[in-house]
Amino acid sequence: MAFSEFRPLDEQSLIEYIKATPVLSAKIGKNYDDLKIKEVGDGNLNFVYIVVGSAGSFVMKQALPYVRSIGESWPMTKERSYFEALALKEHGQLCPEHVPEVYHFDRTMSLIGMRYLEPPHIILRKGLVAGIEYPYLAEHMSDYMSRTLFYTSLLYRTTTQHKHDVAEFCGNVGLCRLTEQVIFSDPYKVSQYNHWTSPYLDDDAEAVREDNILKLEIAELKSKFCERAQALIHGDLHTSSVMVTPYSTQVIDPEFAFYGPMGFDLGAFIGNLILAYFAQDGHADPANDRKSYKEWILRTIEDSWNLFNKKFTALWNEHKDGPGEAYLPAIYNNPELQQLVQQKFMKDLFHDTLGFGAAKIIRRIFGVAHVEDFESIKEASKRAECERQALKFAKLLLKERRGFQSINDVVSAIRA
Amino acid sequence: MAFSEFRPLDEQSLIEYIKATPVLSAKIGKNYDDLKIKEVGDGNLNFVYIVVGSAGSFVMKQALPYVRSIGESWPMTKERSYFEALALKEHGQLCPEHVPEVYHFDRTMSLIGMRYLEPPHIILRKGLVAGIEYPYLAEHMSDYMSRTLFYTSLLYRTTTQHKHDVAEFCGNVGLCRLTEQVIFSDPYKVSQYNHWTSPYLDDDAEAVREDNILKLEIAELKSKFCERAQALIHGDLHTSSVMVTPYSTQVIDPEFAFYGPMGFDLGAFIGNLILAYFAQDGHADPANDRKSYKEWILRTIEDSWNLFNKKFTALWNEHKDGPGEAYLPAIYNNPELQQLVQQKFMKDLFHDTLGFGAAKIIRRIFGVAHVEDFESIKEASKRAECERQALKFAKLLLKERRGFQSINDVVSAIRA
Repeated sequence: MAFSEFRPLDEQSLIEYIKATPVLSAKIGKNYDDLKIKEVGDGNLNFVYIVVGSAGSFVMKQALPYVRSIGESWPMTKERSYFEALALKEHGQLCPEHVPEVYHFDRTMSLIGMRYLEPPHIILRKGLVAGIEYPYLAEHMSDYMSRTLFYTSLLYRTTTQHKHDVAEFCGNVGLCRLTEQVIFSDPYKVSQYNHWTSPYLDDDAEAVREDNILKLEIAELKSKFCERAQALIHGDLHTSSVMVTPYSTQVIDPEFAFYGPMGFDLGAFIGNLILAYFAQDGHADPANDRKSYKEWILRTIEDSWNLFNKKFTALWNEHKDGPGEAYLPAIYNNPELQQLVQQKFMKDLFHDTLGFGAAKIIRRIFGVAHVEDFESIKEASKRAECERQALKFAKLLLKERRGFQSINDVVSAIRA
Repeated sequence: MAFSEFRPLDEQSLIEYIKATPVLSAKIGKNYDDLKIKEVGDGNLNFVYIVVGSAGSFVMKQALPYVRSIGESWPMTKERSYFEALALKEHGQLCPEHVPEVYHFDRTMSLIGMRYLEPPHIILRKGLVAGIEYPYLAEHMSDYMSRTLFYTSLLYRTTTQHKHDVAEFCGNVGLCRLTEQVIFSDPYKVSQYNHWTSPYLDDDAEAVREDNILKLEIAELKSKFCERAQALIHGDLHTSSVMVTPYSTQVIDPEFAFYGPMGFDLGAFIGNLILAYFAQDGHADPANDRKSYKEWILRTIEDSWNLFNKKFTALWNEHKDGPGEAYLPAIYNNPELQQLVQQKFMKDLFHDTLGFGAAKIIRRIFGVAHVEDFESIKEASKRAECERQALKFAKLLLKERRGFQSINDVVSAIRA
């Protein structure tokens, strides 16, 4: 440990810290002369330093005891860093191709040293705003989601392992509470943090706050989020938690990780793709009407679910005689029954996914944290129109999700 | 602490222990001359000593590191005693009228000193076998279940409290695994511990092991049991975990307690009443055809659910502006919506209750631990007939539970 108690780093103390930490100083060949350090934390919560030397590079991510985008008035435990490091390591073991390697973790300093995702890696959301196609995105994200969710669930884990890990991640309650507030509560009530494209969406905001059926559905999803320890989920898997090049897909920032419902991760990713779709009309210009890009997004939505479904089921089949205690081989011992339980499981997960996905869209329109997909549409009336389309679809999805039989149905409904 | 390390007590060492433990010796006025000690543990797991002196009395319950009814070949953590004491204290605070007071707990010795439930208290199951009516049973049990389940759920608790307590009770994994095995697994596969009224029910046992739809349903309930931390449940609330007189109802033995689905407790109680109903024909004799007693059981089943429903909803209404984070008052702020969410919650809980209740019946017919309701029917063919009736109903309940609208429907189906 380089420092004996917590202190927020700056560029100067960061160098001191690196010098005192062998695994980090070795990464840059102990050469400090040409070291370049840049603070780039543009997320809502943390400080992120890129450290690049002639011999190597890494990223240092420090959690401060408040929400960065709001300030010290919104305290937030810096222990989140511990759970982020834990999740990065756990998910990294399960899916090393799509999770950056952790080099160093310092609990006292709430500091993670990890792989620097060098250019041309960019935040996926920025790519979606720019209209860039990622041909491997669905393939890679379905790899990541199927492996992390399957292997941390009772389909693969024993009850003993499961309860042990559930208990550990109960400690990440501060971040769970933040999610509860900003996703499941604030958009459905008057809150000082809420904002939206006013005055255009004033009536829509009020309609959400007065929609009994929507509130009934959001309560069911919130209960699942709070009570159902189904797998170690990322907990914040939107399109700014993914860094991409055309050939690489890396999932970052799992500080919200805990044992929750699988559909929350799937819904975050697919919901943010749907949201990106509805934002495209706002990005269209004479040079690019975005029509073919919208088709690519829809294909990616379809492929993400369908590939996930296929890979998750394949893992289940592969490990049906494995350590998982949910479906014991001595009971679920015939192919017809195996298919029955899988179909039921995947159908329920699909509907969870649609519900959580819808909740994720709604909160980005009325809640505290908006997204570049919409915010980059400068003309307010045009932005409001895109948001209204997304909202209309999200409300349909949240209320009628159990009627959708396949992701194909969902894509058809998006087009309609 | 009287002893510095764990040792199984006998009557001699028990007296030593009491002498060294002020709170216990005070209970009996430090008078050891006329002390009567009797080992009465007739459950499946533990050793229980009744200690009665001229000045007072108590019970000492010690957990040994194996399952008593099976022997040392089935190891079982004695730490269960810690969780039992914790649950007795927690539930006792919430419902002191129906939970015996804990005087002393010694974690090293896995030893609980608690109120002796003096005669005429008997185990409810024995009363049901004897055909005794308990006019306050439904009233008291609905008190106990509504208070313990409501106050330990997110309807009353904050997320922070909830996650803290969930984590703590994750430690009771040994007992959760035992439940998983004996209720959700063994009856549906070939197991060395299974037994049934053979040869009469041989075909029925095989039919259960080959019933795909039954296995599909039991998987859903098992998932809920393993994953859904809805409230601090008793975890083993059958009719031998309740001691009664006509005027008193006391819930004992919560060593299986953990944060699980509420319906598991409700189902255990109601399922065991249904089972008691179907056993009555085996207890009928020329002096008592048990017909009016069967009607009393059916009324008690109806009353137990209906009173629970009423009291639980009343607690919810009373505390709707309280600390619970599931349904924030700023969102669920109109009477119509409040009614909608309550109806949905209670409907889902009702169906969980029926499912878990059915599972509890099935396991008592084919699993490791049978019950006096059936075992006391000496004539095997008659016993098998009663068990077959109960089984038939339990299978219907497990498969068709979502079709039942009210407990009235259930009672009508029992009669049919």
